[in-house]
Amino acid sequence: MLAKLDPQYIVGFIDGEGSFHVAIYKDKRMKAGLKIIPEFHVSQRVDSREVLVDLSRYFACGYIKANHAASKKDKNLVLVVRNRDDLLKKIIPFFEKYRLHTTKKKDFQIFAKIVRQMAKGIHLNKAGAGRIIKLAYQMNRGGKYRRHKHSLH
Amino acid sequence: MLAKLDPQYIVGFIDGEGSFHVAIYKDKRMKAGLKIIPEFHVSQRVDSREVLVDLSRYFACGYIKANHAASKKDKNLVLVVRNRDDLLKKIIPFFEKYRLHTTKKKDFQIFAKIVRQMAKGIHLNKAGAGRIIKLAYQMNRGGKYRRHKHSLH
Repeated sequence: MLAKLDPQYIVGFIDGEGSFHVAIYKDKRMKAGLKIIPEFHVSQRVDSREVLVDLSRYFACGYIKANHAASKKDKNLVLVVRNRDDLLKKIIPFFEKYRLHTTKKKDFQIFAKIVRQMAKGIHLNKAGAGRIIKLAYQMNRGGKYRRHKHSLH
Repeated sequence: MLAKLDPQYIVGFIDGEGSFHVAIYKDKRMKAGLKIIPEFHVSQRVDSREVLVDLSRYFACGYIKANHAASKKDKNLVLVVRNRDDLLKKIIPFFEKYRLHTTKKKDFQIFAKIVRQMAKGIHLNKAGAGRIIKLAYQMNRGGKYRRHKHSLH
């Protein structure tokens, strides 16, 4: 395809298919005992791979991998942007310029706040990490994703 | 919200969240013994209702109803456009002007063909209805939706 996507097309597509989330893992090697990983995701079935390639080209970042969380029946791919510089310089400014319309807008705003706090190193001590986790729990309607991923309970 | 949506936003959103499908029911009252109903759908969780309202306003057609197919846990709403004139004069011309990028593009093209054939009354005899059903089976990756809805087997 190699389509040059329109930014408004992208924001519409992400409002439907994208997600901003923050995974939290226990990690003894980290000072705060936790590893916090903000990621931008877009998931698609294998036969719509091209739109992920187009998005990745548009943003000039991210990588596409198989989505292991998907059921065996529906093979899914996911575009992942995890690199902090890419999030700070490419993804976040894009969605601040082109505004989301669904409840994902609120998720995005919290996500942007977390990534920027992490860029300042706030997550590197326990108190800061706690504040970031509190923010993360306000995302994605209660943090279903995170409940599966971490074991802070 | 009352946001005036950008057409490119809409096409991106529909590429993610929209669907074009053709439901087929047995109906003895119809000459061909079948009722064929092309519909344009956009499904969202209740808390993103506003984007459905905005879409419905943009297209100046359709209605929003509870999506009974959704699980009890996730309450969904669906914007439905079923009126043939609305499909012919509003929905189809929009997606011919603003092109979809995913595999939904192929579904849309078949959908448009079916709606136009039906506007000519081709579905009103058995042979024509058969041709339309054959087209419909090429949609949505094998017609999962239709298998649930009709009982032609």
